[in-house]
Amino acid sequence: MEDRIEISLSTCKKLKPEPDRLGFGKAFTDHMFIMDYAPETGWHRPRIIPYQPIQLDPAAKVFHYGQTVFEGMKAYRTREDRILLFRPGKHFQRLNRSNERLCIPPVREELALEALKQLLLIDRDWIPAEEGTSLYIRPFIIATEPLLGVAPSNHYQFIIILSQVGAYYAEGIRPVKIMVEADYVRAVNGGVGSAKTAGNYAAGLKAQETASGLGYAQVLWLDGVQRRNIEEVGSMNVFFKLNGKLVTPYLSGSILDGTIRDSILHLLKHWEIPVEERIVTIDELVVAFRHGGFEEAFGTGTAAVISPIGELYWQGERLLIGKGDTGELTRRLYDTLTGIQYGRLADPFGWTVEVAE
Amino acid sequence: MEDRIEISLSTCKKLKPEPDRLGFGKAFTDHMFIMDYAPETGWHRPRIIPYQPIQLDPAAKVFHYGQTVFEGMKAYRTREDRILLFRPGKHFQRLNRSNERLCIPPVREELALEALKQLLLIDRDWIPAEEGTSLYIRPFIIATEPLLGVAPSNHYQFIIILSQVGAYYAEGIRPVKIMVEADYVRAVNGGVGSAKTAGNYAAGLKAQETASGLGYAQVLWLDGVQRRNIEEVGSMNVFFKLNGKLVTPYLSGSILDGTIRDSILHLLKHWEIPVEERIVTIDELVVAFRHGGFEEAFGTGTAAVISPIGELYWQGERLLIGKGDTGELTRRLYDTLTGIQYGRLADPFGWTVEVAE
Ligand SMILES: Cc1ncc(COP(=O)(O)O)c(C=O)c1O
Ligand SMILES: Cc1ncc(COP(=O)(O)O)c(C=O)c1O
Repeated sequence: MEDRIEISLSTCKKLKPEPDRLGFGKAFTDHMFIMDYAPETGWHRPRIIPYQPIQLDPAAKVFHYGQTVFEGMKAYRTREDRILLFRPGKHFQRLNRSNERLCIPPVREELALEALKQLLLIDRDWIPAEEGTSLYIRPFIIATEPLLGVAPSNHYQFIIILSQVGAYYAEGIRPVKIMVEADYVRAVNGGVGSAKTAGNYAAGLKAQETASGLGYAQVLWLDGVQRRNIEEVGSMNVFFKLNGKLVTPYLSGSILDGTIRDSILHLLKHWEIPVEERIVTIDELVVAFRHGGFEEAFGTGTAAVISPIGELYWQGERLLIGKGDTGELTRRLYDTLTGIQYGRLADPFGWTVEVAE
Repeated sequence: MEDRIEISLSTCKKLKPEPDRLGFGKAFTDHMFIMDYAPETGWHRPRIIPYQPIQLDPAAKVFHYGQTVFEGMKAYRTREDRILLFRPGKHFQRLNRSNERLCIPPVREELALEALKQLLLIDRDWIPAEEGTSLYIRPFIIATEPLLGVAPSNHYQFIIILSQVGAYYAEGIRPVKIMVEADYVRAVNGGVGSAKTAGNYAAGLKAQETASGLGYAQVLWLDGVQRRNIEEVGSMNVFFKLNGKLVTPYLSGSILDGTIRDSILHLLKHWEIPVEERIVTIDELVVAFRHGGFEEAFGTGTAAVISPIGELYWQGERLLIGKGDTGELTRRLYDTLTGIQYGRLADPFGWTVEVAE
């Protein structure tokens, strides 16, 4: 594997969007990272090039058989103008676990991190400074071999693109309403639910569309077998505080091992607040609600970090959580995690990685 | 929707592969069909252009969220040099059912068929004439909008590519060995298993790789809930003849509604041979085998039409089917279906559609 990253800079700079109109995942930076895989050479020709279209044969396997994985993380600009990443190593490890499940050859994690750092330094002007904003990082791998047989591809591209992200909570952290999905299933044990791969998201679109139409922000998935066990939200893991006790679904094999989920488990341990990782059923939530013990609920993921849940909709019933406000522990976790990410708080866990020349 | 198909012909012709080296899905013809979708215009600009790479923004949704569907059918050259399609209407109907599940706007089926016919006429020299060969047809739709939010795309491309296919049974129809999959799951009820979408095939790669390593041609999937019910093979539906009775898994919602499966059900009815569409468990197959009643088994799909199964491997046990040879009914179905497809036999069902100026 050749590790020197070739760099060719863009000759013109794109206009950056207004800081209050960043949105999510639509304004991409001036450059991208790309690296190829072939059986004879392995991963080779790592390079940073101007952001540009990809050219693929229409028979490329990614279009037909969905052999692809991705990651999602962020770069944060601190008040002192330092650039921080949050647990990039964990993200690239997960990329390789996804690769393993999808029969894609692993990438060297150190090289991926080095590539990301160089790309961020080149496009560092794109990392916004306003409160709550950041630069979203999307590493992904696609199968490029033009061959219609259903078998792992012999050729791949590993790509990193960057996109500005506006403040998730422009008007302050605010609870969302979530619909518990009774008909559609996202993933099942033995499937690819624990991998970050395209097909999982395609499978979720229909339910998401229905939920949106009914005024719900996202769906909460149940497991595909019992149809009772809580799994996760669209792109978040979930935690519940029931009768004073914190619980979260254990890593059953059909949900994603979230970086924020894991960080929260560490934080809670550090704070000596007990949390149970176990099966959590929808029935348990309903019972807690009926007895007035459904105190807090929140989703966790890179995009929102913590997203308080104010209401769950389940088979005609609205389960109001707490008083519909952001819970106390929810807020404390949010403040601490974002504090660490933006370098405002000490980082006793060594989670942040500085990007510097 | 604008229906006039714009045509721009290739100025050079590719070399065609030797007829005995066609393989599957690797030699593509000189032209392709393409049509775009935008919210304002719907599907528009249907056109036939020289076969060429697709250019996509690296943020195109198909790469990240797998919003894509496809079909697979064939064009056959008869001895009289006529060109026949087999039930193309059924394939385009299924494309639209897949579209519906994946939140992709439907295509007009008549336009899709007209486009396919025109493309075939332009590339008709590519349709091979040798016994058992054909031209494989791959219509597919990809989400092209460059936006990382997890929601249905606003932009799509519908593409048809064509590829020569060698004789599946160059040395005569021959039974394959299949491994029943105990660990991995392809699809579950409430998921996307009944749609022809990329993620289903990505999810199957790992099991397929393991099975190949053990000398098995394909895996036979069990359902994701009970893990006992037979679903289908990689890209085939399955039929079994047990103690003189024909059975096939019913359309449970997690398997594909195969065109060949459906055609066989019609043929059997025509022949007044009873067949049961119902739950078939692996245990039932084991019991039939132990009592000497596992008489025939075959997979059905566009690629092989009928693929006799000579052996199933399940938890350490080899279930030999019949005497390991192609069963009598299996062969009769194969001969009849391929006879109709190649225009050698009468087509009482109106399945074949001729492509002519
Ligand atoms: C399905 C799914 N679950 C959970 C998460 C949360 O993971 P993380 O905390 O690593 O962002 C994500 C987002 O990445 C996701 O896509
Ligand atoms: C998953 C799956 N099942 C079954 C089939 C058989 O379908 P058909 O008979 O329409 O080719 C296919 C192939 O198209 C397939 O991909």
